[in-house]
Amino acid sequence: VSVNLPLGPGAEFDAIREMLARWGDRATGIGDDAAVLELPRGDKLVVSTDTAIENRHFKTRWLTPQDIGYRAVAAALSDLAAMAAAPVGVLVAIGAPESWRAKLGEIAEGIGSALDVAKTRIVGGNMSDADILSITTTVIGRAYSPLGRDGARRGDHLYVTGRLGGPDAALRRLESGEPAGVFHARFARPEPRIEEAQWLAERGASSCIDISDGLVADARHLASASGRALEIDSDRVPCIPGVAVELALESGEEYELLVTSRRDLDPIAFEAHFRVPLTRIGRVVDGPAGAVRVLGALVANPRGHDHFSS
Amino acid sequence: VSVNLPLGPGAEFDAIREMLARWGDRATGIGDDAAVLELPRGDKLVVSTDTAIENRHFKTRWLTPQDIGYRAVAAALSDLAAMAAAPVGVLVAIGAPESWRAKLGEIAEGIGSALDVAKTRIVGGNMSDADILSITTTVIGRAYSPLGRDGARRGDHLYVTGRLGGPDAALRRLESGEPAGVFHARFARPEPRIEEAQWLAERGASSCIDISDGLVADARHLASASGRALEIDSDRVPCIPGVAVELALESGEEYELLVTSRRDLDPIAFEAHFRVPLTRIGRVVDGPAGAVRVLGALVANPRGHDHFSS
Repeated sequence: VSVNLPLGPGAEFDAIREMLARWGDRATGIGDDAAVLELPRGDKLVVSTDTAIENRHFKTRWLTPQDIGYRAVAAALSDLAAMAAAPVGVLVAIGAPESWRAKLGEIAEGIGSALDVAKTRIVGGNMSDADILSITTTVIGRAYSPLGRDGARRGDHLYVTGRLGGPDAALRRLESGEPAGVFHARFARPEPRIEEAQWLAERGASSCIDISDGLVADARHLASASGRALEIDSDRVPCIPGVAVELALESGEEYELLVTSRRDLDPIAFEAHFRVPLTRIGRVVDGPAGAVRVLGALVANPRGHDHFSS
Repeated sequence: VSVNLPLGPGAEFDAIREMLARWGDRATGIGDDAAVLELPRGDKLVVSTDTAIENRHFKTRWLTPQDIGYRAVAAALSDLAAMAAAPVGVLVAIGAPESWRAKLGEIAEGIGSALDVAKTRIVGGNMSDADILSITTTVIGRAYSPLGRDGARRGDHLYVTGRLGGPDAALRRLESGEPAGVFHARFARPEPRIEEAQWLAERGASSCIDISDGLVADARHLASASGRALEIDSDRVPCIPGVAVELALESGEEYELLVTSRRDLDPIAFEAHFRVPLTRIGRVVDGPAGAVRVLGALVANPRGHDHFSS
């Protein structure tokens, strides 16, 4: 059942109607075989797709239905942020067992919050009966000059947005049966850095990646795509209060941005504008392509990162 | 695991590598957080998403892995055809249980055939471990003037492409345990009418829909969106040899196009060009919005369609 079809009677259509009601005018272009969008002249199209599946990508006992919807769409939107693209629209394909039907309105509410954060809309969707809850989100964005992960050059500075370690700290607590407390929001409501990325791109960032796999892991991806090595000064890595830097270096599901820039970026102006820190944490160096070296007094031996590793 | 990430070791990455190998240069823009595409100046973006789930949308004992891949992507591309849009790229999010891993190369091959038919490419994807096989396909297209289903005006002629009834005949046989024989290809390998739709739009078609729900059901959708009624002369409905018109009227999963046009379209030129018939089967009339009246000597009482029904 596609959202693009007229809605007849039946439980699946009721669920779609319920979701559309929650989205209101945040859902557009519904009612034809496909949605029509316009792109400003000269802009390139930037597209990506991402799936979140119950018990594989999220546990329902750790997240509300709203969180599940929010997180699925926010994570997908973060791939647009990583390219310094502005979202044009989002398509959501939901597979839901009957037991989830009554909660689809709440999931839609969470999706709506992610749309609001990124100032975008639902432009298409699909609803299927399924054995397990899954949300596949396709994001459509635009950028005049999309920012890849392959543009880092030797001597560039390395910056990261935000404070790291929150999602990992939340997950460790949840997995051991404790409430995640102050770390919960960082895990349940990650903020795609959409406007932050455009700000950085406009000021000369040379490459960008979101650190959904963790700072060091994604630093390797960026270094590899750029054919360069990276040095990270762990003493400078901004951590969420209460999180050790060794853990912050590895914390995944962050959705913060790792950015390189030849020119100095302005952390004070950035933080004044976005209420999010921007921190210089290292640089692009000579060395084997894809290698990342973690330095710093705080890190004696952070899982082997004291030497180049790739 | 997103196709857009660098590929590390592991079974999921092996599966992705296998699929990418089958696609060859039919997969592009892989290796960054999102793919970048260009749109010709002035064209609008046309997007849609569609999910196919094992045992819900297809039965694996009726289709080869190649057919499953082909059909999932061809069905999604048909939504672009229905808008007279040219495909720009396709994103596939696959959920696959371990038992399907060894067959993902064959699924990719079928997907590749659908890409070839529509002359398009994979521009992004996602691979997830899942309990059941599912393929969510998002299609990105472009059109200077997308053709909606809401443009039918009183007096327009009504046309349909192809010959109807094949998928229904195939399904009836398969469901009763027989081989689908001559009908199998119509069911397993539907052809999205991508170039046909553009040809019709260029020659003045006023509205269009694909008849994936069946001729009469989708005629109602088109009539409803246009705020008009439709008359279908069942004596003119082109059927696959061996299929009764009563069944052809209801046969779903056709992926042929139902088109209205004020001007006469040229079925001879159309068939000469595409080797597919184009048949005038009715017209747009006064009557309740969304109503469809089926006339004709062959149809005594086609499930209530002898009177206006909506």
